Formats: sequence, C-alpha cells, structure tokens
Amino acid sequence: MNKPLILVVNDDGITAPGIRTLIQLMKELGEVVVVAPDKAQSGMGHAVTINSTLRFHKLDMGAGCEEYSCTGTPVDCVKFAVGKILKRKPDLCVSGINHGSNASINVIYSGTMSAAVEGAIEGIPSIGFSLCDYSISADFNPLKKFAKKIAENVLKNGLPNGVCLNVNFPAVAEEELKGIKICRQAKAMWTEQFDERKDPGGKTYFWLTGKFINQDKGEDTDLWALENNYVSIVPVQFDITAHTSIAAVSKWNFDLIPHAV
Amino acid sequence: MNKPLILVVNDDGITAPGIRTLIQLMKELGEVVVVAPDKAQSGMGHAVTINSTLRFHKLDMGAGCEEYSCTGTPVDCVKFAVGKILKRKPDLCVSGINHGSNASINVIYSGTMSAAVEGAIEGIPSIGFSLCDYSISADFNPLKKFAKKIAENVLKNGLPNGVCLNVNFPAVAEEELKGIKICRQAKAMWTEQFDERKDPGGKTYFWLTGKFINQDKGEDTDLWALENNYVSIVPVQFDITAHTSIAAVSKWNFDLIPHAV
Repeated sequence: MNKPLILVVNDDGITAPGIRTLIQLMKELGEVVVVAPDKAQSGMGHAVTINSTLRFHKLDMGAGCEEYSCTGTPVDCVKFAVGKILKRKPDLCVSGINHGSNASINVIYSGTMSAAVEGAIEGIPSIGFSLCDYSISADFNPLKKFAKKIAENVLKNGLPNGVCLNVNFPAVAEEELKGIKICRQAKAMWTEQFDERKDPGGKTYFWLTGKFINQDKGEDTDLWALENNYVSIVPVQFDITAHTSIAAVSKWNFDLIPHAV
Repeated sequence: MNKPLILVVNDDGITAPGIRTLIQLMKELGEVVVVAPDKAQSGMGHAVTINSTLRFHKLDMGAGCEEYSCTGTPVDCVKFAVGKILKRKPDLCVSGINHGSNASINVIYSGTMSAAVEGAIEGIPSIGFSLCDYSISADFNPLKKFAKKIAENVLKNGLPNGVCLNVNFPAVAEEELKGIKICRQAKAMWTEQFDERKDPGGKTYFWLTGKFINQDKGEDTDLWALENNYVSIVPVQFDITAHTSIAAVSKWNFDLIPHAV
C-alpha cells in the first residue's frame, strides 16, 4: 500500500518553526509535500491573488521532502499544490502550526484556517493547527503527540463533506495538557483600537490593534477548552448559509417590487 | 427622529461605479458615511492589515456625504469606521455594489462580503450587494429599486444576531427581473488553472485563473435563482462551526493520549 500523501501549508511562511515542526510530525505518517508562503501572511483570511502575478520556487530545506515557496497567500499555496504540483489529490492537508490562537472569531481572519478551508473545498480532509503562543520561539514539543494523533484519526476516519478541523493548543507544558475537547466556535470579537502615529514627514498613519472580548460563557466552546488546558477541535464548514434565518427573511415585505416572491 | 446612519464600504475601491450607485441609493434612506479602499481589493477575503501600517484620507467626491479612502482592506475599512470615524454604531452597513458575482462559494473569497460579515461581527445589520457583471461599465440601473427595498427591510426588521445578507443581482434588464428569492449558498467551486508565462528575464510566473463548477442542482440555491433571473438573498453567518459534525468527531479514538476525553 502507498504511504498517504500529505500536503503541508501555513501562513507564517516556510521557515517558521511551526511549519518545520509540522513537517517532521507528518513525515512519520506519510509522504510530505510542502507549499508555503515565502513570507509571513498572518491575517490574510481567505485572500487569493487575482490582480497580480504569482511565483513559486522549489527549495531544499533539508527536511527530506519536496518543498516550494510561493509569493502568494496561504489559499494560493493550496490551489497551486493541487493544480500544478501534486500528481494526485492528497490524502490529507495540514496547515500550521500557527504561531498564535485561531480559536473563536480568529478563525475568520486566519490564513492558516483559510488554507484548511480551501483544502476542504477541494475535497481534501484538512486540518488547521494553531498554538496559543505568538512567539517565534514558542515551544511546540508539548503538542506533538496530540497533533499526530489527530492527523492519524483524520487519515483513518476521513471528514464529512465540506468540513475541516480547527485545532488549537493551549500554551502549557505537556503534563498540564488535560486532553482533547470537540467544541463549537465561541462567540467573541476584537474591539479595534487604532494606534495613531506621525511619520517622519509629519503625516498620520495607524497600526490596527485590538482587545479580544469573549462574550460567551458556554463550556462547550473552544475558548473554554483552551482556558482549561484542553486541546480544542472545532469542526468548521465553508457553507456559511444561516439556514435557520431563511424562514424569517422569507417573511419580509417586498411587495412594492413587481413580480416579487 | 434622527435619520438612520448608514456606513457604505466596498472592495472595488472608492471610485468604482458600484459604490457610487450604492451611495446615491442609501442617501435616499439616511445619513451616509463612506469608508472604502483607495484601490481595488477584490479577492481579499477577510484579510486585515496587521503587519503594515494604514492610512486614511478624507475626500470630497461630490456626493454630499462624508467620505474616506483607506490604504487597507475592506475589513480594515469597517474597523476604522467603527473605531475612529463614526460617533455612534451605524444602523446599517452596506458593502458593494460589487462588480461581479459573490454567489455560492465566491462568498468565501469576497472582500465585499467580508466587509458585511465584519459589520455583523460588530453587531451592525449588514448587507453585501453584488451584480453578476464584472465590467467596469456594468449597468446598475435595473437593480436600484431592489437594493433600496432590501435595505429598507433590514432597517425596519433588523437581522438575527450574527447574520448578514449576501445579495446578488443577475445582469439582466429590469423588465426581465422576476423578483427576489431567499436562498442557501449553492455547492460549487473553482477548479484552478495556472496561466504560466515567462517574464522579460526568462523567469516563470503565473496568473491564477479558474473555471467555475456548479455541483448543486437544488432549486433553493443562489445560483438557481440568479440563472432564473431572480435576485438572490442568502443569510450568512460568521459562526462557521459545523455543528452537525461535532457528534461524529467526538466518537474518534484518542485513547493513546493520557487524560484524553
């Protein structure tokens, strides 16, 4: 039997310690091909490059697998891997390990998770991994056993159509990790703040910053799991229809419009 | 009673005919403030600018309302409007009118819709409008009555928490428009193609292109509505948890991990 083919992508760039860790873990499970941005792409959401050109370079990073850097976004990397590099559809697409949380509303802004969602759109079982530590020197050792076990489960069980996994690890020592919780995305948001400065020419510019507000006290959420030293797994879908709202909106009055339904 | 406060954003840039049309329509309904990118930002998804600086400029575009251009993404525009410009939370946030379809899976890649989703995250009733015509000279006249009526309904009825609307208009004459359908997001995807070229120095570069494939024959979808000359409205949510998959994933075997749940 052939080894599983595993596509590894990320949004922190191909040299980030998080993806180097993930590559080593996935090499224990299958044949690995890496396609990752040539620079950090955090906060890129589901951006794709349609108004400018893309370049890809084959690299040898000494990891013993095929690797490519890409001038585009995490989603571009998945598209290029599927469209140009891989000879067959991979058995698994893993994204990360992100330096920083993608729990709760962060999933929406995350390049890491958008790459996993793009994998799901392509029909590939896909997982985004994130460690709740933004540091470049974050310690990925405690999560290794968990990440590998989760990937093994996806290889074995597959995932429902249109669904990928958003996995977040609390930044704690291995002996403090209590286990795994399957969760829903907590209701939370960033209240933005704009750090206003003057450039050397005296003109105003801003840095977007913000404060994270958790509005959700549920114990079935990813934020609760992480605060209580569990690994959180949220199944995520790309059908973003608010199905339960279709009936309410259907009752609206559009009757001044000819032929309205 | 005060007039409703309406925030207008887009992803095609502040000078695009689509947003100029939307500004005129919204001025009939309330006090309008415009915050829009200074250049086209199509395909930016839910990108936010966190690794570089932002600038905003107050402009007079002759529309008789407050307008600002922004160097960032559509989502940055919403955040800046809420965080720095508007004195109170707006009663409505409208995004568009996009030059091109945001129906089906396009909602995921769309800067127009990400701005509307960001509005919903901020607790503002929000609508993204798109015309299924990519041309800069697209005819927005046929949709005016419909867009205004939909905005009036949102101002009157509000929207459920966490939900915004994805409204798409078919590119047909007004007399061919059959009415409005409340729909779900059709299952469809882009199969990517990479147009490979050589630069003047002989190095390879690519343009991402693609072919749109509709895998969904349902008559309750946005694609069906648009193909049959209806305006499609899909209620969209930012909770992307695949709630129905939580039970299945919870049955997986993580038992080699100490303390696993």
